[in-house]
Amino acid sequence: MQLKNNLLLKAARGEKTERTPVWLMRQAGRILPEYRAVRNSLSGFIELVKTPELAAEVTIQPVDILDVDAAIIFSDILVIPEAMGLPYEMVEKKGPFFPKTIQSISDVNHLKIAKPDDLVYVTEAIKIAKKELAGRVPLIGFTGAPWTLMSYMVEGMGSKTFSKARNMLYTQPEMAHQLLQKITDSIIGYVKSQIDAGADLIQIFDSWAGVLPPAQYEEFSLKYIQQICDAITEVPVTVFAKGAFFALESLGKLNCETIGLDWNMKVAESRKQIGSNKTLQGNLDPCALYGSFKEIEDATKKMIDEFGEERHIANLGHGVYPDVDPEKVKCFINTVKEYTSK
Amino acid sequence: MQLKNNLLLKAARGEKTERTPVWLMRQAGRILPEYRAVRNSLSGFIELVKTPELAAEVTIQPVDILDVDAAIIFSDILVIPEAMGLPYEMVEKKGPFFPKTIQSISDVNHLKIAKPDDLVYVTEAIKIAKKELAGRVPLIGFTGAPWTLMSYMVEGMGSKTFSKARNMLYTQPEMAHQLLQKITDSIIGYVKSQIDAGADLIQIFDSWAGVLPPAQYEEFSLKYIQQICDAITEVPVTVFAKGAFFALESLGKLNCETIGLDWNMKVAESRKQIGSNKTLQGNLDPCALYGSFKEIEDATKKMIDEFGEERHIANLGHGVYPDVDPEKVKCFINTVKEYTSK
Repeated sequence: MQLKNNLLLKAARGEKTERTPVWLMRQAGRILPEYRAVRNSLSGFIELVKTPELAAEVTIQPVDILDVDAAIIFSDILVIPEAMGLPYEMVEKKGPFFPKTIQSISDVNHLKIAKPDDLVYVTEAIKIAKKELAGRVPLIGFTGAPWTLMSYMVEGMGSKTFSKARNMLYTQPEMAHQLLQKITDSIIGYVKSQIDAGADLIQIFDSWAGVLPPAQYEEFSLKYIQQICDAITEVPVTVFAKGAFFALESLGKLNCETIGLDWNMKVAESRKQIGSNKTLQGNLDPCALYGSFKEIEDATKKMIDEFGEERHIANLGHGVYPDVDPEKVKCFINTVKEYTSK
Repeated sequence: MQLKNNLLLKAARGEKTERTPVWLMRQAGRILPEYRAVRNSLSGFIELVKTPELAAEVTIQPVDILDVDAAIIFSDILVIPEAMGLPYEMVEKKGPFFPKTIQSISDVNHLKIAKPDDLVYVTEAIKIAKKELAGRVPLIGFTGAPWTLMSYMVEGMGSKTFSKARNMLYTQPEMAHQLLQKITDSIIGYVKSQIDAGADLIQIFDSWAGVLPPAQYEEFSLKYIQQICDAITEVPVTVFAKGAFFALESLGKLNCETIGLDWNMKVAESRKQIGSNKTLQGNLDPCALYGSFKEIEDATKKMIDEFGEERHIANLGHGVYPDVDPEKVKCFINTVKEYTSK
């Protein structure tokens, strides 16, 4: 189906657009009362992820309510470990928790390569969302990056340092590579199935990029992200490696269209390191949306000026924080639209 | 008293040294069984901080056991908020927790400027440690940076995003400045009293530098660090702003002797941005100490080669992790000593 609003994909491919496209990471979620109503009708977050009709419904909410230029499928990066045989729980106010973690080569060997069949609840949600979107805006599919997924699978939960997961890189590097390859193979099948179901762009989230030293990041993360980028030939790819300021040059060489910047990264400096060949996505400080409407307008315009008119997808530098007023989010979105319309 | 081993101070001042000095952040602490024995004889961490004889004892343990080139007084950055009237608890496995936090201007007004008298347990510990060290190595005093202390005082506990503390920078910037100034004034009196008691160098820890966007970091953090640096004329100062890769140029302009690098920061690139006028401290990945003895030697030598022979204080890029084998720590220390001895 022809897309009525194709701004995101055009900007990703470096084509001229009539204005800068805008969406927000975590736009489908806790900021919207409409989301919370759906979420509260269920027993938990994971149940919502696994109920395609409802996952599709909350996916579309921000398009209806906030008028963003893209939907992103409501799901979770940790569906891959689960599909590989490592289930997790989502503990309220604490985050993910894996009762069993990966510690030995036998643990790695027991993991299976996830098959699209194991994740049919995601592809089903994508199909429903695509149908209900009816071409209004593109639908973004996504995956966690192999290193980020491995971090959780070894550490078992979130961590400031991920020192257990990083321990493995020093003490059992070959095992780490085997684990990362299994995760990568799982991801490639998974994103292919998302594309088959209708995803118009794939974003790879490397949320824990920032805990690795530069050389290890190349060896244990970028190498596998590269495999995923190389495997996706059908749609544009965005790589968001949070905290990987030290790897911007290497990110610029990936076989992908767009690089996400977090709010610590200076735009001009990042552009210089990444090169002119990529679209940049980001990077307003999510906390800027706590400001007044006037301050949000000013901060958004300043950001737009820094990125320039082309090869930019406006977004925050991180997921929107749950306590942000949706009216403030609308202010950010509307400012991007009005300020960049020619 | 004349110091027998003056390597740290000479290196900080940019003087030639017979070899590179080495110490570790958090060397006085959980890695040593001797520390745990002292710690377990008490009811909690804060009690140890407030018992000068024992704080001095664990301060000296790493000099005796690991043979480092400096001691750092065993204390906590959060003694300043407490002395300002905001007490905290240290919750096992979770970290600090403030039952009451700073939310309004009235809360700020109720805080007092900490007086050296409020922190006499720290200066007393410094005096005892100095006496027991008897000039073997210099003793480092320290403080949290104003922004990092404010983060805890507003947020009430550790956080991945510190979005509550950062909210205040957007919604109540003047109140934030008043709070930061009160903290800064408290810190200046505190570090002066540490120097009077015998501290040979002051390190400023800006542990949460990395959550701020570059412009806010200048306004809400560096400005106050600058005040502290300007106030300390008696001894060298080290600023360790974790995650502030985006501010290295500005850090290079501070009125201080040494800049600490975390393990994400590339040495050559950091040196270029900081300039040749500062000593650099760091920056081996703390997880590298999980490797084999041979791997630790290799990684340490590689780090030494990157920093070069002069204006370098060898350290990790973060505090040593509690589950690291002290023998591995010794391997790091001995490699620095042997590899850099001329």
